[in-house]
Amino acid sequence: MGAREMAVAARESSRRLQALSSEERKKILLAVANALETNEKLITEENEADVAAAEKAGYEKSLISRLVLKPGKISNLAKSIRMLANMEDPIGHVLKRTQIAEGLILEKTSSPLGVLLIVFESRPEALVQIALLAIRSGNGLLLKGGKEAKQSNAILLKVITEAIPESVGSKLIGLVTSRDEIPDLLKLDDVIDLVIPRGSNKLVSQIKNSTKIPVLGHADGICHVYVDKSADMNMAKRIVLDAKVDYPAACNAMETLLVHKDLVQTGGLNDLVVDLRLEGVTLYGGPRASAELNIPETHSFHHEYNSTACTVEIVNDVQAAIDHIHEHGSAHTDCIITEDHEVAEVFLRQVDSAAVFHNASTRFCDGARFGLGAEVGISTSRIHARGPVGVEGLLTTRWILRGSGQVVDGDKGVTYVHKDIPIDS
Amino acid sequence: MGAREMAVAARESSRRLQALSSEERKKILLAVANALETNEKLITEENEADVAAAEKAGYEKSLISRLVLKPGKISNLAKSIRMLANMEDPIGHVLKRTQIAEGLILEKTSSPLGVLLIVFESRPEALVQIALLAIRSGNGLLLKGGKEAKQSNAILLKVITEAIPESVGSKLIGLVTSRDEIPDLLKLDDVIDLVIPRGSNKLVSQIKNSTKIPVLGHADGICHVYVDKSADMNMAKRIVLDAKVDYPAACNAMETLLVHKDLVQTGGLNDLVVDLRLEGVTLYGGPRASAELNIPETHSFHHEYNSTACTVEIVNDVQAAIDHIHEHGSAHTDCIITEDHEVAEVFLRQVDSAAVFHNASTRFCDGARFGLGAEVGISTSRIHARGPVGVEGLLTTRWILRGSGQVVDGDKGVTYVHKDIPIDS
Repeated sequence: MGAREMAVAARESSRRLQALSSEERKKILLAVANALETNEKLITEENEADVAAAEKAGYEKSLISRLVLKPGKISNLAKSIRMLANMEDPIGHVLKRTQIAEGLILEKTSSPLGVLLIVFESRPEALVQIALLAIRSGNGLLLKGGKEAKQSNAILLKVITEAIPESVGSKLIGLVTSRDEIPDLLKLDDVIDLVIPRGSNKLVSQIKNSTKIPVLGHADGICHVYVDKSADMNMAKRIVLDAKVDYPAACNAMETLLVHKDLVQTGGLNDLVVDLRLEGVTLYGGPRASAELNIPETHSFHHEYNSTACTVEIVNDVQAAIDHIHEHGSAHTDCIITEDHEVAEVFLRQVDSAAVFHNASTRFCDGARFGLGAEVGISTSRIHARGPVGVEGLLTTRWILRGSGQVVDGDKGVTYVHKDIPIDS
Repeated sequence: MGAREMAVAARESSRRLQALSSEERKKILLAVANALETNEKLITEENEADVAAAEKAGYEKSLISRLVLKPGKISNLAKSIRMLANMEDPIGHVLKRTQIAEGLILEKTSSPLGVLLIVFESRPEALVQIALLAIRSGNGLLLKGGKEAKQSNAILLKVITEAIPESVGSKLIGLVTSRDEIPDLLKLDDVIDLVIPRGSNKLVSQIKNSTKIPVLGHADGICHVYVDKSADMNMAKRIVLDAKVDYPAACNAMETLLVHKDLVQTGGLNDLVVDLRLEGVTLYGGPRASAELNIPETHSFHHEYNSTACTVEIVNDVQAAIDHIHEHGSAHTDCIITEDHEVAEVFLRQVDSAAVFHNASTRFCDGARFGLGAEVGISTSRIHARGPVGVEGLLTTRWILRGSGQVVDGDKGVTYVHKDIPIDS
């Protein structure tokens, strides 16, 4: 089946899925959870074959570790699917209700986006999470997984698809196996509604540059922590260390530390530097910090280390910190550490990033930590969804108008009242 | 100033605008309303010069009539700006509030998109409406108006810009005067966040095909009215006529009439056809209707007449109508006329369009009629905003997290509670 046929078939199935009742969609999710547990042995065997092949091919250890479905993984997945099944159905929510005129009621309701294309790298459990988010949100799905996980992905999709009733159809989720098909898929802006690349910055940038379909994702995570002169320095140390070393390769890790100039005199800057070095962090400086601390100068402030390294710079005040972030950041997650409430509010109001924090580690910027349930990714796009994206990002809206014969007739047809009606009523 | 410099300057000004208080932004809007009234004579003179030049150049009458700022227009614009000023500030609304952990509060808040590029055709009042919506929503703006309205646009922008305080800056709104600059602007996907083309289908399609910036708009408005066998036929006639003839060139006018097969026998179909013809509507048929009614066959069901003409087809039932709409429609506005509540709900639940109506004319699909205040356009995109788009479509969100020193520390740093906090509290 060609790329277009797959996408069209996925949309048709998604429309049948949307037409089901909430209870029926919930049953599908529960059936998938059961099917995964029932077929655990089969899944594990196929996964072991992938792992053996990857080892034989001499792949990196980190890739192989991402490939392995560890014992307990399947039952954990089944557990999270059951949680998703018991969540309130996200489709058909009334978001707003307005009386337009006598007997003419308008509702803005949530509805599925349509067809998603998700490109992900090695972890096979990502296939399960994504497929279930798509079912929960009523969307059709085309998936392209890593070739190392070929057998794992095939068996997982087979098990999931067999649990989808015939009334919806087996083509709700399509698996694209060859990388060569991606360019064809990326051309289908009339039948695919959203592309979500889950993987390296390079993957995201490549996809963004080669499609007219909207892309949800982030290419850069250049997160800043600004330590104000009024900071509690013990708190500052704790947050700065967590933001950098809790998981240095994460997109929400700190890449640039900005320090108020007064902290040079007080020794605050030096204390932070000593602590970072104790944790094995390599420091690069902006012009002022490299002179002050005698460290190598960074070649660019717009740089994501993705490792135990970061840039340090000295700034005059909160406004200079904000300007620096706007000029050099990636609008992902930026944080201020201060005990001065007014300074904090200036930062929170002005910093134009997806996530802006006061006195908390940048590492909190994450769907699970934000309480969104499963996460499809973190978006630094300003359109549609921004920051950590859960099921909500896979939905759009429809306007439903219920009348009793009203016509516009040059706007003399009805008397407009435009009265908001509370949604609970 | 080059295209990039204009966009960067507009973003910088928009950030200063965002940093103002609600009261200060409101004052700007009121100052603009006053400035327009004060300068009415000047504006009218420049507009008359444009009109005279257009007449001399032999432009079409319809274009000239769109170009004219009729008496009372300026004070009407000022009035609608004062309404906008007195609306609740759309920036900084808390949309959702969650307690993540003890002392760690997350808010999802509304914020400006950034920089908008709006391309519009002849009406000069569109400049005023768009500029004020941008100020209200805290966005920077680049505008490209029709060349026929050159002098009108220049004076309107001058008057508006002079009312913007120096603290925000005169480059918040930039006017692009030459069509040659458009291709350069459309390349700036790193500094322009959204393009809104207001004009012909051709304009919208051209822009969609030549930019990576998200485009808000609709290229086609192929709206359907489906008359079910259970319809009240007097109501059906009223709605069908209004949907087609109230304003045939509008994107929300009916282009295709679908009729249940039983209405052939009852004479219902014939009555509708007679009434449409009485109003001067030319009819084209699908295969079944053209045979039954002896009318020419349409060359395509996916056709927007934009005039007093439409396609008619006979369908077996509501499911066939839904399938027809999905296959041939443009997902703009589709309507069912029926007295059968169950049939209506099947249609309302399944039709996958921006607006889906029961027993009301498609012509109601409009920002003003929906009560959204000013409208920036109608979107048939499924991403970001769908259907009539008001100020809300010019906003994005930011996640604001307020903590007291919390760190993630491998998710052992805090005890997650994820408790929703009511927003009124």
